[in-house]
Amino acid sequence: MDIKTLAAQAKDAAIALAALNGSVKDKALDAVAEALLTNKEAIFAANQEDLARSEKEGLAAPLMKRLKFDDKKLNTVVAGIRDLTAMDDPVGVTQRATELDAGLTLYRVSCPIGVIGMIFESRPDALVQISSLCLKSGNAVLLKGGSEAKETNRALYTLIKEASEGAGLPAGWIQLLETRQDVAEMLGLDEYIDLIIPRGSNSFVRHIMDNSNIPVMGHADGICHVYVDQGADIAMAVDIAVDAKTQYVAVCNALETLLVHESIAKDYLPRMKEAMEAKGVELVGCEKTRAVIDVPAATKADWDTEYLSLKLSVKVVDSLETAIDHINRHGSGHTDSIVTPDEDAARRFLSLVDAANVFWNCSTRFSDGYVFGLGAEVGIATGKLHARGPVGMEGLLIYKYKLLGSGQTIEPYSTGEKHYTHRKLDGDCPV
Amino acid sequence: MDIKTLAAQAKDAAIALAALNGSVKDKALDAVAEALLTNKEAIFAANQEDLARSEKEGLAAPLMKRLKFDDKKLNTVVAGIRDLTAMDDPVGVTQRATELDAGLTLYRVSCPIGVIGMIFESRPDALVQISSLCLKSGNAVLLKGGSEAKETNRALYTLIKEASEGAGLPAGWIQLLETRQDVAEMLGLDEYIDLIIPRGSNSFVRHIMDNSNIPVMGHADGICHVYVDQGADIAMAVDIAVDAKTQYVAVCNALETLLVHESIAKDYLPRMKEAMEAKGVELVGCEKTRAVIDVPAATKADWDTEYLSLKLSVKVVDSLETAIDHINRHGSGHTDSIVTPDEDAARRFLSLVDAANVFWNCSTRFSDGYVFGLGAEVGIATGKLHARGPVGMEGLLIYKYKLLGSGQTIEPYSTGEKHYTHRKLDGDCPV
Repeated sequence: MDIKTLAAQAKDAAIALAALNGSVKDKALDAVAEALLTNKEAIFAANQEDLARSEKEGLAAPLMKRLKFDDKKLNTVVAGIRDLTAMDDPVGVTQRATELDAGLTLYRVSCPIGVIGMIFESRPDALVQISSLCLKSGNAVLLKGGSEAKETNRALYTLIKEASEGAGLPAGWIQLLETRQDVAEMLGLDEYIDLIIPRGSNSFVRHIMDNSNIPVMGHADGICHVYVDQGADIAMAVDIAVDAKTQYVAVCNALETLLVHESIAKDYLPRMKEAMEAKGVELVGCEKTRAVIDVPAATKADWDTEYLSLKLSVKVVDSLETAIDHINRHGSGHTDSIVTPDEDAARRFLSLVDAANVFWNCSTRFSDGYVFGLGAEVGIATGKLHARGPVGMEGLLIYKYKLLGSGQTIEPYSTGEKHYTHRKLDGDCPV
Repeated sequence: MDIKTLAAQAKDAAIALAALNGSVKDKALDAVAEALLTNKEAIFAANQEDLARSEKEGLAAPLMKRLKFDDKKLNTVVAGIRDLTAMDDPVGVTQRATELDAGLTLYRVSCPIGVIGMIFESRPDALVQISSLCLKSGNAVLLKGGSEAKETNRALYTLIKEASEGAGLPAGWIQLLETRQDVAEMLGLDEYIDLIIPRGSNSFVRHIMDNSNIPVMGHADGICHVYVDQGADIAMAVDIAVDAKTQYVAVCNALETLLVHESIAKDYLPRMKEAMEAKGVELVGCEKTRAVIDVPAATKADWDTEYLSLKLSVKVVDSLETAIDHINRHGSGHTDSIVTPDEDAARRFLSLVDAANVFWNCSTRFSDGYVFGLGAEVGIATGKLHARGPVGMEGLLIYKYKLLGSGQTIEPYSTGEKHYTHRKLDGDCPV
């Protein structure tokens, strides 16, 4: 079937899904968990096919590890589903109630966004996590996983679809896309798809953002900074920078540029260099940095580069303000951290740095939905609308206004015969 | 100065504005109110120029009325500014606090979006309302008003800029664009502008939405429906439809298509026709409608047309589900209302109709920020992200995550040596 037809089916399903009782959704989640456990051998067999093919194609070891779907990963995703069924239904929650006049009451009520296009990387467990999050939040979903995992994804998708639709979910609420061409077609379907959440390489995400009229939530770059302020505890500032740079280099919240106040540069830079080099980090620096430690010169491009590798650019700045200005010009609005004992400096940094995550005296690596306690994460957003930073289930919800009257027309309010009361109310929307 | 330079200035100002103390913003608002009152003769003189030129150019009477800026309108906008200064600062509000571990606390704190591009219609009072809303919410703003009001807008803009910057607002936080060419340039400046809020004709708003990478909040169409269900009180259903269609025909929340359950069509349609025709409404209908009342046939295009005039399309449907399906296919997600005594039918309609505003037993004309008690309205959004329906100050805000640590690195949490506590906290972010 063509992608447009699949998306139109998903849109129809999304309408029905939005009105579904929470207990039906929880029963469907239970059925999905059971189906995965009961059919685990079939899933593992499909995964073996993917692993064998990928090994033959020379897939790198860390990616092979992510591709593997075994008992441990199955148990993790099933535990994630159990967590979701234990949660209250996030849909239909009254966020605000206002009496406009006697017998005319306004409710703002949470609802799903509609149809989500989700593009994710090689881990097949992500397919289960994303589709169960969408189910619980009442969204229909078009899924596109990594092609390395195609057999596993197909097996998981088929089980989830059959179990959930068997338990009462509207047919077509979940759809699987399989090729890059499918994704390209999806980008034009703004009539049916409400939001695209892409994960993957920077260039791929940027391509999606540049080529669709559909709103995109996510991030292309993760150019994160640590700024070591005057008076910083040297050991703390070394630990934080080394952890932020080296603990996991290939992730978006890893450190890419280190900024150092000039008053502390002579004490800090040599110790930082020693600790970084012990971890195999290659440093490049500005002129002032190179006056203190012997490192190659950074080029202009370095300040705008997300290395995602054991490389770090270092710049000495003359003030907190210069550091903030550098971050606002060269950062990507992802995560930036200040190391300082000075509360006032921290306040200025956290207020003036325009990023989703602004940290004081800790590693940039903490920006993560699980770490933040949001439950499963659908992605990290660096845009400035709707949701920002790590995005959990809340990011898949919006609201509608329900106004319950008893025959009111606007005319008497317009002439001044009747007046609005605008009285805040407690209590849930009755319909 | 070119638009790019103005936008870059606004972006710099936005950073400073985001960190400004609430009392500075309130003092600036006071200064603006005083400046408007003190210089009212100059504003009125500028307005006379606009009125004289527009009269010569044959501007229609209702638009002349909107263009006029007199003592009454001045007092209204000044009262609006006083309302804003009486409000708490909406920026820097802690929305959520979570202890991640001892000495590592996460706060989600409200912040401005950044730089707003605001395009509005002929009323010069809108310039004052919008800029004071942006000021209070800490956003920089590029304003483009109707060209009929250009002298008045320039006078108001100059007074607001001088008074607010004199009271401590960062230079360049407010900018005035004057031509359509300025707007065209603005659409490409996604590096500096975070959100565009266009108001104006449908075709103009659609043009903006189709021609910018910058997120757009607003609506192009307002194809609103009233559905008269079986068992509806006939008099109530006539009153609501007539009010929704005729009380103000040129607005986006006016009725465009009336849907009627077939079981009530014979009783309802003749009385509806009589009442509509008494107000000068021209009806077109589907075949089933025309079997009951004598009206011209509706064409396929009628179901997708926002008339914004005294014309109404009427369709008889065989069920609530058919009505909902028609609305979801042909509506614009703005405002749709059901008239029914049946709570179950209302619940289904309000859940299944995918619109920002879903009403029960009242006129579609109630969808408005002032009516909803949101204070000043920046627009009505029919998108499904960030803000939906009438959008007040809240729509100009987003949040950032502030994480306050004491030297934490991720490594010990990754190895399992340390664990997250994820304890919900009360209290505000201290920095």
